[in-house]
Amino acid sequence: MKKLYLSVLLTAAAFGSITPAHADDHNGDYAMAIHGGAGTITRANLTAEQEQAYKDKLTEALEAGRKVLKEGGDSTTAVIAAIQVMEASPLFNSGKGAVYTWNGEHELDASLMEGLNQNAGAVAGVKTVKSPIELARKVMEESVHVMLSGEGAEQFSRQQGLEQLDNSYFNTEHRYQQLQKAKETINKSEQAEQQAWEYLDLDYKYGTVGAVAVDKNGLLSAGTSTGGMTAKRYGRIGDSPIIGAGTWADNESCAVSATGHGEYFIRFHVAADICSRVKHQGLSVSEAGDEVIHGVLEQAGGTGGVIIIDADGNIAMPFNTEGMYRGYFKGQGKAEIAIYNEDE
Amino acid sequence: MKKLYLSVLLTAAAFGSITPAHADDHNGDYAMAIHGGAGTITRANLTAEQEQAYKDKLTEALEAGRKVLKEGGDSTTAVIAAIQVMEASPLFNSGKGAVYTWNGEHELDASLMEGLNQNAGAVAGVKTVKSPIELARKVMEESVHVMLSGEGAEQFSRQQGLEQLDNSYFNTEHRYQQLQKAKETINKSEQAEQQAWEYLDLDYKYGTVGAVAVDKNGLLSAGTSTGGMTAKRYGRIGDSPIIGAGTWADNESCAVSATGHGEYFIRFHVAADICSRVKHQGLSVSEAGDEVIHGVLEQAGGTGGVIIIDADGNIAMPFNTEGMYRGYFKGQGKAEIAIYNEDE
Repeated sequence: MKKLYLSVLLTAAAFGSITPAHADDHNGDYAMAIHGGAGTITRANLTAEQEQAYKDKLTEALEAGRKVLKEGGDSTTAVIAAIQVMEASPLFNSGKGAVYTWNGEHELDASLMEGLNQNAGAVAGVKTVKSPIELARKVMEESVHVMLSGEGAEQFSRQQGLEQLDNSYFNTEHRYQQLQKAKETINKSEQAEQQAWEYLDLDYKYGTVGAVAVDKNGLLSAGTSTGGMTAKRYGRIGDSPIIGAGTWADNESCAVSATGHGEYFIRFHVAADICSRVKHQGLSVSEAGDEVIHGVLEQAGGTGGVIIIDADGNIAMPFNTEGMYRGYFKGQGKAEIAIYNEDE
Repeated sequence: MKKLYLSVLLTAAAFGSITPAHADDHNGDYAMAIHGGAGTITRANLTAEQEQAYKDKLTEALEAGRKVLKEGGDSTTAVIAAIQVMEASPLFNSGKGAVYTWNGEHELDASLMEGLNQNAGAVAGVKTVKSPIELARKVMEESVHVMLSGEGAEQFSRQQGLEQLDNSYFNTEHRYQQLQKAKETINKSEQAEQQAWEYLDLDYKYGTVGAVAVDKNGLLSAGTSTGGMTAKRYGRIGDSPIIGAGTWADNESCAVSATGHGEYFIRFHVAADICSRVKHQGLSVSEAGDEVIHGVLEQAGGTGGVIIIDADGNIAMPFNTEGMYRGYFKGQGKAEIAIYNEDE
């Protein structure tokens, strides 16, 4: 059953029916953008085979989302369909490809938000849930809460009948080697741990996946799913499960999913701030994205990127790293995929 | 050691020195506002003795903050001093007076943010930390992360040498009775659990404490500490530890601490949105607070309140419940305390 806040009913009654903001003048076009993480992604770092593998998987994710939207499905279902393709692939730091924590486990985070009533769901630190983004939807729709964490979130997941598995499902050799290298760098550093962190290759921090979409009814939705930061400790929670930091959707402005150095994205509430500028200053999604990613975030030393979409299907994908796995389509248009900075 | 992001150093170098925004024209006045929770707080619900006890404790908290500010201490230290008075009191749903979870334990959350560089620290779901707001400061200053959770956060707390104690320290008869009543209401409800939650007395949801301050140097700071929601399950995380939802500070706009039905405060990123309106629309803290609390939040059916302060010491304390324990002072002015709606 959908979460039916009394207030939503009252609001809906006041406006006559439950319709998205701007739905009246929505042209019926649907569109979607996705990302698979930002970081030091250069041609030198990827073989031709690796590059093709990423492009193929990003295309598959987009087409999974397009299938939903084309058939009249809602943007939330489309966002989840696209993210689940990436969660199931070892290429990305989410689901199957999740990085290792300091203790050699995997702790996954995800969040989801709808632009109509700003309903949202998020989970942090789950270890046995195959698709964290699916659990985020269950939290949004089947619980009275917005954010669940740890064992409690897993208990809720079992009650909802979602697929559970052993934490070892997320083991991959590639990520294990990354953990060893990260621990070595941190342990041998003569400077404070935080200094070591600053100089760690960005690949150890990034790789989150996300999707944003507008459906035929003009409803915006955004979702983000991640394995967090390699070698993370102390139950660290990054920006991905934080509504406003890693994910945001508001039909009066835009929908955003972020990837990057999460601590900065929390401190500057990146996703929500982009939409605030669209809403309160009348900026386009492109202008607002540039101001926050190349302005605010860059001045603070934060690195990463976002995908942004508005109810008219305008899309922006700004980032300030060397690359961001990304792609989009509008309606039945070609799925456009890009990886490097110069691909802009 | 203070967290020294390379970026902060670069930014500081670019501007000549590390000074708060607006510091040049700051008049040297200091000010502070605090809250001890919002909800169905009416004259009929409080005895004269209870009312006096709250007033005395709020005054004590304000004076603890004033002592720091008067002697030239920073606003973060003042915010923590005020919050720790309330954390140590059984009157409020934070620290000693924390409510019970569904399982009969106590899980505490807190967050802290500084307006200069938007540094922030937060902890969620800690069970053995005497002062969660103190731990939030350690996360901000001594870790590379912004948000830590659960056992990992407690491990970090032990490493930092903070006072730990058994979870039973937080046991109080008053809160235990509240848990029994809440579970009874939820269990006997013939409607869905979420419906029961909607009709539960607001007192089971609220009671968070918080403080905002500006110091002699014009630095803004905000902090929030809570025991969460009575009978909460599944590792629920509310708005209090979410930077942007329950706590926000930005010297270019304002500092905010929130209390209320946390799920709504997350979905509408209440604390950050108030400051966004000050920053991007040029509203006063009073106008921005009213728009969000009496406009956005109320239309969505969300209840609660916030305390807001800007670098000039302007203070607003809007709420849409029957009462909010609150108080403020400016410089050496009288500590003003209020509880009910009509006390405005």
